[in-house]
Amino acid sequence: MSVRWKLVLEYDGGAFVGWQRQDSGPGVQQALEDAVYAFSGERPEVVGAGRTDSGVHALAQVAHLDLAKPADADTVRDALNAHLRRLPVAVLSAEPAPGDFHARFSATRRAYRYRILNRRPAPALDAGRVWWVPVPLDAPAMHAAAQRLVGKHDFTSFRASECQAASPVKTLDRLQVARRGAEIEVTAAARSFLHHQVRNLVGTLRLVGEGKWSADDVARALDAKRRSAAGPTAPAEGLYLVEVGYD
Amino acid sequence: MSVRWKLVLEYDGGAFVGWQRQDSGPGVQQALEDAVYAFSGERPEVVGAGRTDSGVHALAQVAHLDLAKPADADTVRDALNAHLRRLPVAVLSAEPAPGDFHARFSATRRAYRYRILNRRPAPALDAGRVWWVPVPLDAPAMHAAAQRLVGKHDFTSFRASECQAASPVKTLDRLQVARRGAEIEVTAAARSFLHHQVRNLVGTLRLVGEGKWSADDVARALDAKRRSAAGPTAPAEGLYLVEVGYD
Repeated sequence: MSVRWKLVLEYDGGAFVGWQRQDSGPGVQQALEDAVYAFSGERPEVVGAGRTDSGVHALAQVAHLDLAKPADADTVRDALNAHLRRLPVAVLSAEPAPGDFHARFSATRRAYRYRILNRRPAPALDAGRVWWVPVPLDAPAMHAAAQRLVGKHDFTSFRASECQAASPVKTLDRLQVARRGAEIEVTAAARSFLHHQVRNLVGTLRLVGEGKWSADDVARALDAKRRSAAGPTAPAEGLYLVEVGYD
Repeated sequence: MSVRWKLVLEYDGGAFVGWQRQDSGPGVQQALEDAVYAFSGERPEVVGAGRTDSGVHALAQVAHLDLAKPADADTVRDALNAHLRRLPVAVLSAEPAPGDFHARFSATRRAYRYRILNRRPAPALDAGRVWWVPVPLDAPAMHAAAQRLVGKHDFTSFRASECQAASPVKTLDRLQVARRGAEIEVTAAARSFLHHQVRNLVGTLRLVGEGKWSADDVARALDAKRRSAAGPTAPAEGLYLVEVGYD
């Protein structure tokens, strides 16, 4: 009789090729599965709520796995962390979950944060943690344009060509842009996102921030339903998966 | 006729042996002096407001130097940053200063921040940026005890043996401890500090946070005027020089 475990994870995406293993190197999933094996001798799949790309960070990714080995929650968390200590991934919590809990399919809300360092000097302390944009950006204009994207839309214009989602229609619950000193923070929340959707939204809002695009241009890009109609993809290093919610 | 320049600097202390060059490797000062030479062909000394130790970070260190080469402020900042681009140090601003401005001796206020990550899992994203303390700390108790240290005192108990200050008497203007989620932030402000003073204060407050010491124990350690009477030195990696003020 195995137990289903829910894990909350923090990791530095720059150290991995993404959540899933690639030919080019190890994924976060693989690192966790190796730690689970070292702890339990078992090889369950570790299923993540979102398959973050290479370079994308997580403050609170959620994953599940099934373990036959009996253990209390603190032991599971601490033992996995002991086996992960050489890698920049930490299990923040481990807790038993109902047998039908699924990290990906049970999730009803995901939230991302995107950090832009908007100043002329490059980052000395936050290299690899922010998108450095040296030209001045108008954050209030970006926020205003972002509101044209909130709601239920066909987001084909903001979807990576390799996206495997059945439908390009998603409901974007929140897209906010706020400046704090030299940093601009974009927060996005939805039940689920298309592949590269947040990075494509941010890359497009940058055009607004620079004054090259108006809010109407953003609305037209959305209506065009062509990826080439929207702006470029912002780099992975500024993106953080910050929350996965379950009802 | 040379111009005195005031620089504001950000750097990752983990990449340097400290502000000053050591036998063991390059200092931030050396990196700046090399960049100044590459830009101007001149070799002025770059004088810092505080000689941060190896591993100590800066969000706003201040330095000064004299340059004969004529240049406007943006050019000085951008040229130095271009020559520093392979190193985690950034010139946030450069501005002409009066000829008697001295980054160290004119400073009337310094502020440091110390970041403690107080949770059982190790940091995945902030390794080298925080002091990881896995045992639970009582931040309000630390804050209350810290208030016993504020004011003008003989801080011999919190002074490194190699400290070169003429007097151990300093006025600590502010020492605050506050929790934000899993992080505890200690902020300290004074006209000037003794060598290792902030790290020794934090290492002692940790004992209070763990419940091993009372606020009275902290006051007794101060009164003892012996380094061995206070707690251990907190590691450099959690410390940030955040402000240098001038009247």
